[in-house]
Amino acid sequence: MKTFAEATAVSAQSSHDAGPTFYVAAEIAEGWDILGNANGGYLLAIAGRALTTALGRPDVISMTTHYLRPAQPGPVEIQITELKSGKRFSTGHLVMRNANTHETIIASIGTVGDLSAPVTGADAEAAAFQLVESTPPDLPDPDDCFQTSDEGEQYVPPFFSQVDVRFHPDDAGFMQGAPTGTPRLRGWFRLRDGGDMKIAASTLPLLVAVDAFPPTIFNSTDIRGWSPTLELTAHLRGKPVPGWIACEVKTRFVTNGFLEVDGEFWDESGQLVAQSRQLALAPRGS
Amino acid sequence: MKTFAEATAVSAQSSHDAGPTFYVAAEIAEGWDILGNANGGYLLAIAGRALTTALGRPDVISMTTHYLRPAQPGPVEIQITELKSGKRFSTGHLVMRNANTHETIIASIGTVGDLSAPVTGADAEAAAFQLVESTPPDLPDPDDCFQTSDEGEQYVPPFFSQVDVRFHPDDAGFMQGAPTGTPRLRGWFRLRDGGDMKIAASTLPLLVAVDAFPPTIFNSTDIRGWSPTLELTAHLRGKPVPGWIACEVKTRFVTNGFLEVDGEFWDESGQLVAQSRQLALAPRGS
Repeated sequence: MKTFAEATAVSAQSSHDAGPTFYVAAEIAEGWDILGNANGGYLLAIAGRALTTALGRPDVISMTTHYLRPAQPGPVEIQITELKSGKRFSTGHLVMRNANTHETIIASIGTVGDLSAPVTGADAEAAAFQLVESTPPDLPDPDDCFQTSDEGEQYVPPFFSQVDVRFHPDDAGFMQGAPTGTPRLRGWFRLRDGGDMKIAASTLPLLVAVDAFPPTIFNSTDIRGWSPTLELTAHLRGKPVPGWIACEVKTRFVTNGFLEVDGEFWDESGQLVAQSRQLALAPRGS
Repeated sequence: MKTFAEATAVSAQSSHDAGPTFYVAAEIAEGWDILGNANGGYLLAIAGRALTTALGRPDVISMTTHYLRPAQPGPVEIQITELKSGKRFSTGHLVMRNANTHETIIASIGTVGDLSAPVTGADAEAAAFQLVESTPPDLPDPDDCFQTSDEGEQYVPPFFSQVDVRFHPDDAGFMQGAPTGTPRLRGWFRLRDGGDMKIAASTLPLLVAVDAFPPTIFNSTDIRGWSPTLELTAHLRGKPVPGWIACEVKTRFVTNGFLEVDGEFWDESGQLVAQSRQLALAPRGS
């Protein structure tokens, strides 16, 4: 099995000075799929690594991705167009295509920067003002949470052999045939491969976390069909300390066949490290 | 003064069949600015109209925009690259440039569709499932709300002569020198030009509404500097009935110099018509 670093590797690329268009080669690895299709967060991690590499800044700050076609393992070509390179941030358009068929898999817009850089000058006062109107979800110890392996005979997607997700027992109802009635999932997330500390402490694992939970709506309806994501936006608010990520994803509005899924992600130091929102289609009755 | 339809006009464009790249001409009108720079929501409305026109579907469904440079009145050129045209949706990348300097003003990714089209086939059951876990904000009658003209001697941006925003009196503290301490603004929104009913009942005015409120953080700090938006994502969840839009925008996290602003927007029939989230930089101390 490939490490996370290997599974998100992008080809050594022409230097940043080569802009404004960069071509990056990568490969969708085996074993990151759900029913044969690569997980959306895994695709984000590949795209995020391509974007930070091409634009020459270490962290994804904000990335929005539209999911255009399901993807299977194999080579992909990623085209990045630099739109602006400023003092603190660079922004680019990204398109990931199947390298054989040239069909577009995902398309993004993203801004990258350096979340570790001290904020100086006119921005320093702004950076000093803090407001945190929420707390990490109250979760039992990971070992006291529900795991996908607890599902017994049910199909467990290969994706869950790459990521370790522990569900709050109060939210795991839908996995035991008893939806809770509340379209919310809380739980812990970490990569099973904790190997490369530089990558583990980057924003890349967070890009996997933001799409690692099953559809929230599974706790509100017996419909178990695929809920296609149209668009997912991740805001990376901090670099995580190594360890578990405490996650909460929830849905407040299902209307006209659309629903949003809002996520908050906290590291073990209690720092908010990411927010996410996706717009998805309500699941079809399979 | 130009009507909203005129202020967001885009050039009659080569047909949809001309894809995948479209060039659209438009003009940033006078009188939509705040301190000389065009309001971000107004720019979204121009971009949204260009996107729906080029991709040949009537409604913006999801649009994410990164703000790269402030914009002043004058001609702009908009380049749209079609990424996919499916059964229900089309998706494209968009770049808006100053037509004289060719500097990039904004860049977007968006998906367009038809919010009025009946959902049929396999999606029909999904579209029938509804969940609405919130209500429109409880607002006084528009005439009992705080208006920008109530600010007396203070500078009122020209933008507010294009849009009519009525602030909940409980949230208008910052406008009277007494921040409420809660980074939330509730109020009514409508275009002052209610003329073109086809455009008024489209998603375009909502794209203005999502960026029509002052920074929420003005109610939490005495800092009154510019809070630059890095990125704004709008999900258009329904076509509004003509009338006022009830709005609530709030911030929960200001960390490391970044903050998010989350918006919910409801029409007079009580329908959720839009959700928005932006990632902004905390305001500098001017």
